[in-house]
Amino acid sequence: MIVILKPEANQTAVDHLIHNFEEMGLSTHYSQGAHTTLIGLIGDTSKIDMDIISANEIVASVKRISEPYKATNRKFHPNDTIIEINGKKFGEGFFNVIAGPCSIESEEQLISIAKDVKKSGASFLRGGAFKPRTSPYAFQGLQNEGLKLLSQAKKETGLPIVTEIMNLNHIDLFNDVDVIQVGARNMQNFEMLKELGQCDKPILLKRGLSNTIEEWLMSAEYIMAGGNNNIILCERGIRTFETMTRNTLDISAIPLLKKISHLPVIVDPSHATGIPWLVKPLAKAAVVAGADGVMIEVHNNPAKALCDGPQSLTPIEFDHVMKIIDSMVATELKKMNR
Amino acid sequence: MIVILKPEANQTAVDHLIHNFEEMGLSTHYSQGAHTTLIGLIGDTSKIDMDIISANEIVASVKRISEPYKATNRKFHPNDTIIEINGKKFGEGFFNVIAGPCSIESEEQLISIAKDVKKSGASFLRGGAFKPRTSPYAFQGLQNEGLKLLSQAKKETGLPIVTEIMNLNHIDLFNDVDVIQVGARNMQNFEMLKELGQCDKPILLKRGLSNTIEEWLMSAEYIMAGGNNNIILCERGIRTFETMTRNTLDISAIPLLKKISHLPVIVDPSHATGIPWLVKPLAKAAVVAGADGVMIEVHNNPAKALCDGPQSLTPIEFDHVMKIIDSMVATELKKMNR
Amino acid sequence: MIVILKPEANQTAVDHLIHNFEEMGLSTHYSQGAHTTLIGLIGDTSKIDMDIISANEIVASVKRISEPYKATNRKFHPNDTIIEINGKKFGEGFFNVIAGPCSIESEEQLISIAKDVKKSGASFLRGGAFKPRTSPYAFQGLQNEGLKLLSQAKKETGLPIVTEIMNLNHIDLFNDVDVIQVGARNMQNFEMLKELGQCDKPILLKRGLSNTIEEWLMSAEYIMAGGNNNIILCERGIRTFETMTRNTLDISAIPLLKKISHLPVIVDPSHATGIPWLVKPLAKAAVVAGADGVMIEVHNNPAKALCDGPQSLTPIEFDHVMKIIDSMVATELKKMNR
Amino acid sequence: MIVILKPEANQTAVDHLIHNFEEMGLSTHYSQGAHTTLIGLIGDTSKIDMDIISANEIVASVKRISEPYKATNRKFHPNDTIIEINGKKFGEGFFNVIAGPCSIESEEQLISIAKDVKKSGASFLRGGAFKPRTSPYAFQGLQNEGLKLLSQAKKETGLPIVTEIMNLNHIDLFNDVDVIQVGARNMQNFEMLKELGQCDKPILLKRGLSNTIEEWLMSAEYIMAGGNNNIILCERGIRTFETMTRNTLDISAIPLLKKISHLPVIVDPSHATGIPWLVKPLAKAAVVAGADGVMIEVHNNPAKALCDGPQSLTPIEFDHVMKIIDSMVATELKKMNR
Repeated sequence: MIVILKPEANQTAVDHLIHNFEEMGLSTHYSQGAHTTLIGLIGDTSKIDMDIISANEIVASVKRISEPYKATNRKFHPNDTIIEINGKKFGEGFFNVIAGPCSIESEEQLISIAKDVKKSGASFLRGGAFKPRTSPYAFQGLQNEGLKLLSQAKKETGLPIVTEIMNLNHIDLFNDVDVIQVGARNMQNFEMLKELGQCDKPILLKRGLSNTIEEWLMSAEYIMAGGNNNIILCERGIRTFETMTRNTLDISAIPLLKKISHLPVIVDPSHATGIPWLVKPLAKAAVVAGADGVMIEVHNNPAKALCDGPQSLTPIEFDHVMKIIDSMVATELKKMNR
Repeated sequence: MIVILKPEANQTAVDHLIHNFEEMGLSTHYSQGAHTTLIGLIGDTSKIDMDIISANEIVASVKRISEPYKATNRKFHPNDTIIEINGKKFGEGFFNVIAGPCSIESEEQLISIAKDVKKSGASFLRGGAFKPRTSPYAFQGLQNEGLKLLSQAKKETGLPIVTEIMNLNHIDLFNDVDVIQVGARNMQNFEMLKELGQCDKPILLKRGLSNTIEEWLMSAEYIMAGGNNNIILCERGIRTFETMTRNTLDISAIPLLKKISHLPVIVDPSHATGIPWLVKPLAKAAVVAGADGVMIEVHNNPAKALCDGPQSLTPIEFDHVMKIIDSMVATELKKMNR
Repeated sequence: MIVILKPEANQTAVDHLIHNFEEMGLSTHYSQGAHTTLIGLIGDTSKIDMDIISANEIVASVKRISEPYKATNRKFHPNDTIIEINGKKFGEGFFNVIAGPCSIESEEQLISIAKDVKKSGASFLRGGAFKPRTSPYAFQGLQNEGLKLLSQAKKETGLPIVTEIMNLNHIDLFNDVDVIQVGARNMQNFEMLKELGQCDKPILLKRGLSNTIEEWLMSAEYIMAGGNNNIILCERGIRTFETMTRNTLDISAIPLLKKISHLPVIVDPSHATGIPWLVKPLAKAAVVAGADGVMIEVHNNPAKALCDGPQSLTPIEFDHVMKIIDSMVATELKKMNR
Repeated sequence: MIVILKPEANQTAVDHLIHNFEEMGLSTHYSQGAHTTLIGLIGDTSKIDMDIISANEIVASVKRISEPYKATNRKFHPNDTIIEINGKKFGEGFFNVIAGPCSIESEEQLISIAKDVKKSGASFLRGGAFKPRTSPYAFQGLQNEGLKLLSQAKKETGLPIVTEIMNLNHIDLFNDVDVIQVGARNMQNFEMLKELGQCDKPILLKRGLSNTIEEWLMSAEYIMAGGNNNIILCERGIRTFETMTRNTLDISAIPLLKKISHLPVIVDPSHATGIPWLVKPLAKAAVVAGADGVMIEVHNNPAKALCDGPQSLTPIEFDHVMKIIDSMVATELKKMNR
């Protein structure tokens, strides 16, 4: 960490600041130039709050040199994390497809889709029971009833289930859920992240609509700090100025995360743009960019479609996409989970 | 609401769609042009999910014409909402200054700042007990102990208190708090908003870092849908590409919100940029743009400053800003609360 | 186009407005609802300025329903545009790799790289002669001398050349250039676009850092309006809040543009993030997302590297990427140009 | 400037790099820590290209410590620049209002508005002769004819004139123009900036839609590098995710620029949001935030309004805003120019 001092900094105050840093267990390098004077901090600076140092009246600015994320950092954990869920592996060498409806509507709808996506080769079933809706007047999901239907679908198909949590008091309700999803809007709901750190379920952590990759890793750190290391990161599009697509898929985030972190990374090409005919090209891009899986929305009755997002594929369209993914995963020398 | 149909839409499907809309209690206008065919929907479309209609295979796109926010909409509530808190009015004609430290550090610190800001004319004391920090390794606030210190400061100064909630299970702990703040990162923590709708405390709802004004009003709708109409909106800067300031204060949001909504709107010039010497010009801009108040960070020992953000003012600087605000509020024909 | 009227609109003014629209050759549909009154405009609305109509005092807002881009719109030109340059085809079924140094430094450097990229299979040579630099103090390129070196490299290798224009007076200097590149910062330099519309060279039009896809197509319309239909669109990353990469590659733009426009679309994975080890995964993603080519920076001496961007590949790294692209292009059933 | 080395950097390469820096006339500080090794560069680093250094294979990253802008930097030019135009001063202590129509439509329109805004107290007349339009099919302005009308209006009212240039070949046409405006889309048209640096007219440099403050100052450096120091910066709203306003006025940019640069700064509250009833509050905010002026669109026939943006005020509305600005400027202890 580099602390740049104001030109007018009084020497007593500088000495005092250096003394403080050394009391925090850091070594310091003091360097005075014609235009700039700075203090280099050497040692473990991860617990230092840059804002606090910036607040010091003799400090002009502070620049971080080493990364603030530790548990998620590949530097300190060179091997890929592999997460095993109901006998299915997530991470290095394995590719998983999670599929299902955005909202669970009925037993008939869910079971039918579950069977279809299993047949096409999906390894996990997803379905929304608790739905984060911008409007309080919109349908909020079948909630507990939806969780029960998910359990039933799991029994009938054998597919492990993934569903979103929105309330930290609901963790107990998720007993039969295999992977708990944290949605984009709750990526910095730190109190919920802390609770999830205490449980032993794998967490699928979606990126917030406007969160940096560093903030995303810091949210994963919250969960890992509690002892739960089973985290899957999910890129689902970020908010930009472009309006033709609902969000902008940050495809670069995939190879970047695979390099700087050891956690599995998947892509949600359905939410990324909100346009169904973009799911196929984006799923393909995800595979070759190095993703460990994709999560795709599938519904079975688009013509009626009163509870499903417009970005969903029909089971037939999904089957077509699966065939393509299948062959691409093999070319990328990964093993497709089923 | 205007539903634009795809050129190839089959007439039976169109008739079916129109029938569905009419069953939802809406009148329809069907209009066929050379290039575009559309259906106009007339009636209460606020409960219609645009995404669901977009999902219909014969629909090209959907455009909303009336606003999705209702309870917060000035159209249906022409008069300004006035919120009375411990005898202090918030809203039309009144101007309030909320001041205090970002984080509560100690009894001495809090009481000292509380007395200072009261003397300078602040009408509310703010102080962070539960702190939303990007990093799990950073100081998370004094928590319950912080709430107790706030109560004590309230007793000693008579200032009503404002503090942030991060966990929906904590509402009971906030009994002595006068205004519950929802931070930017929880603006779309819908489950917490629902809980806050059930309580009778005024809510200070900060805008999310990357949330549109419409989404912000929809979050207020969540609270109002539960029966709690006492909401103060707080603009605190949005996330943009600019890096010289931490956030970009959206000053236009103030007059815009005052026109389209009846709720009080305040500005947080401290978090807006993270730069202390910008607090004064931004606070002044807030007053003339029509804000009903400002929330300013004040700390008493910037040289030590181990628990305070760099954007804070010293009590002396704050006193100077207050004198300027005071005279500007009078020029704007508003009444300064003390 | 839908014109939504203010509730208080006076009937005489409404009649007057409708009359104006009809004089412009448009048919109108007037529709009065309980909450909203609107006028639908039917006919060719592409020349209507939405801002002007919005300015009318009885108009609340205007919503466009058909696209403002015409010449670039696939609706009116269903077949892919194929551009033939020195015997090499650009567009449907063909894939081109454009490679070379960011800045031309010397004859030796350029010829050496040109030979290397040709050997690896690039079909076009790119090299910067005029460099758009944020700082006036930075190296501005070899300029005319650079153009001469490009011509020489073309002679020695047979590769057609691509280079950027920054000044509308320079078109004559670009006689021997095969494809004129318009950089991101000049995407809305409308006067230069008009001049380029008058010339008969293919134009490689890069997307502006913060321009929407619609604005990008409108800039292509400027060139086409002058009579030059040979335009290649190049996605090179957009400006977002993310700071870990220099820009964010908008991968969705590729399949989106291929659907709504007939123009060839390529990707610049080097500028997209500014990180050399991301070039390979992003180039792969570009191929499977449907791009008609990629443009990659290659330099030959990274250790010295006083005139080259950090995002460049070495010739060896480029050769490796080419082998991968080669086999992927075949899988995608496209023909690799060499 | 701080150069952070990769952990695996070979000592010979490090020595070579240090040697290179010293040959560039810089002093170096080498500092080796347990986790990080870095080289501090001391001296004039303004001409160093960070990208080039980053490209070096032993370099992990580069962090700039001193600002890249020099001529515009207040550090090296502590006093405010005052620009005198036809006897009217721009800068410290003076406040100017520039007003007029977005597009010049006719002699009658322009002269009428010019007289109106003069009467209300505007000190400069603005009017668009060359119009940057997203669409080539939209009205492109009266062009040369518009410039003649501006000259005529100047003769009749005595108001100095401000108008936009879009083509570097047009400078000679602007002989009678008092202030040449560079629009947002041309802020990084570096070739035009260079030409403008050679002329002796004051330049009103608008901020690009998505340009950082640093990039904006660097564009001013381009003009100053040519010898023209008469630059007025104009904040006109930036592009963000918010869609309710056309742009987001970055009000913080005003006090920030006044602190870090010595150039005059004005605000365009009309283009900032595109909403006429927001002009008044934003103009007020600009005054108290420290702006040296505002530029406001005024048209005289909003009901017809076929050539004017919806953000314009009528002369009566403008007169009302002027009265308010007038008294606020006095309160801020500045002198209103007329």
